[in-house]
Amino acid sequence: MNIDMIRAAAKRLEGHARRTPLLSSPFLDEIAGRKLLVKAECLQHTGSFKFRGGWSAVSNLSDNELKTGVIAFSSGNHAQGVALAAREHGAPAVIVMPSNAPEVKIENTRALGAEVVLYDRENESREEIGEALSRKRGLTLIRPFDEPQVIAGQGTCGLEIVADAGVTEADVLVCCGGGGLTGGIALALAAEAPGMTVRPCEPEGFDDVTRSLLSGQREKNDSESGSICDAILTPSPGEITFPILKEHCGPGIVVTEDECLRAMGLAFERLRIVVEPGGAAALAGALFHGNELGHDTVIAVATGGNVDKEVFQRALETLA
Amino acid sequence: MNIDMIRAAAKRLEGHARRTPLLSSPFLDEIAGRKLLVKAECLQHTGSFKFRGGWSAVSNLSDNELKTGVIAFSSGNHAQGVALAAREHGAPAVIVMPSNAPEVKIENTRALGAEVVLYDRENESREEIGEALSRKRGLTLIRPFDEPQVIAGQGTCGLEIVADAGVTEADVLVCCGGGGLTGGIALALAAEAPGMTVRPCEPEGFDDVTRSLLSGQREKNDSESGSICDAILTPSPGEITFPILKEHCGPGIVVTEDECLRAMGLAFERLRIVVEPGGAAALAGALFHGNELGHDTVIAVATGGNVDKEVFQRALETLA
Repeated sequence: MNIDMIRAAAKRLEGHARRTPLLSSPFLDEIAGRKLLVKAECLQHTGSFKFRGGWSAVSNLSDNELKTGVIAFSSGNHAQGVALAAREHGAPAVIVMPSNAPEVKIENTRALGAEVVLYDRENESREEIGEALSRKRGLTLIRPFDEPQVIAGQGTCGLEIVADAGVTEADVLVCCGGGGLTGGIALALAAEAPGMTVRPCEPEGFDDVTRSLLSGQREKNDSESGSICDAILTPSPGEITFPILKEHCGPGIVVTEDECLRAMGLAFERLRIVVEPGGAAALAGALFHGNELGHDTVIAVATGGNVDKEVFQRALETLA
Repeated sequence: MNIDMIRAAAKRLEGHARRTPLLSSPFLDEIAGRKLLVKAECLQHTGSFKFRGGWSAVSNLSDNELKTGVIAFSSGNHAQGVALAAREHGAPAVIVMPSNAPEVKIENTRALGAEVVLYDRENESREEIGEALSRKRGLTLIRPFDEPQVIAGQGTCGLEIVADAGVTEADVLVCCGGGGLTGGIALALAAEAPGMTVRPCEPEGFDDVTRSLLSGQREKNDSESGSICDAILTPSPGEITFPILKEHCGPGIVVTEDECLRAMGLAFERLRIVVEPGGAAALAGALFHGNELGHDTVIAVATGGNVDKEVFQRALETLA
């Protein structure tokens, strides 16, 4: 993994991925106690940054690989990102999803032309199911984070942050599951804006990356479900991503579910964007964990916006 | 009014107004029956396109005029646009607002440093109150739409549509109150993309522009309140704006409140943006009035996103 792979991915993504805006509000600056910029990846195609990695990986395949098709396992956002990228390349896509993923994500993945295979998150291994199907049907497996071309695609988000932020020093808060986006952005910033520090943000009870950064080795979560932050519930940092995180990231920030819901409410009210709970962890860190930050500017990546209306209503209820 | 004024306004706005993205979703294309692009002006500073006109007008004032200050009358979005533009120019701002405007808009205007004067929408004339205060305190009145520099500022939204749309022929649907944005965009398109036709969109019962375009003269609405589309409830098209609309626009499109709520729900689900009822009229036209359109591409301007959570919850309830 290196910066050249990210720059090459940026070229492949040009004209296909959306260059998402950096939003701000004087009202949010006041709550954060500093300048706050929000990278609105919820406005990316399929509603999350995952389209970047999906496009990066699919666009790197040979014609034969495209013809046979791809397979991905995902809690939802990676699924949609890969499904749309595959469809736009004319490649078949099989997606292995947990049966308890938000219904809107399952439906959307099917509507994007993918074949969806459901599994039980508590008792089955998506890795095993994905790899078995991949072998049986000759499909190219596109891993959600431990995959160099996926990390390279996610890193393009970091290049855009550097180009658009207007500052050279900042805490850059990233909602962190397996570390693909966090690692990709960390590599981009290390090469182009070394005064910016990436800070992984995780929900309480699922803080494997934060604990791993403290202990220096890959720690595991006790569970893989049981949080509204479904998009970022991965068991532990990746084999490829963890060394990147360890080398380049500052300490993790652990936020509560309630802070995520309040951040979603404020994003609705002040930025007029829709953010899902797992996609709001970084914004929650920026708004409510200022004492853990080291710079006058904080940049939070709002990683996704695929949320059921019932959960969004809970976020609205946090508003005065 | 001419295209040069719009181009000059675009220069003054550069680096101050946000260049809002054109969003899309394959799911919305399917409902619309054609390619649908959404200009997300709800992501503009202060949550609506009105910041463009406010900045354009305020940035055109002399140092003396800035020092004395400005006054505006507005149902809310123009108020916030002028308030922020004034604050960023170091100019005092007085805003005359209807007492039944959404509370969030009144609060936001105050929080942006403006002095708010409330009036009764049914029994008092905001024009008279605004003009009296303007005379008494020497404030420069910035009218919400019948003001050349405001129209020029709103027209910059049209220049961006032309630059970013990737097509030369389209119906361009614009939520229409007094016609400042609609007229500004119409002038921009007439000069730069004559194959695009502006179509004003209005809520049922407040279709003064649609009726005026049919009769050829400025028609009035029976009431100035009583719709959730508060942002676009103006009594009649403007003296300056109507001749522009008459020369350049296609027929108006009249949408129901229910269609606006459904469009808000779909914008939440498919574009992950927050749109207010009046700001959703154009999207409602694009999604549900396809038989009134003439091109393979429809562009809808989502003009604003300042909405109370109670009204937004009604929009969420329209989703399956």
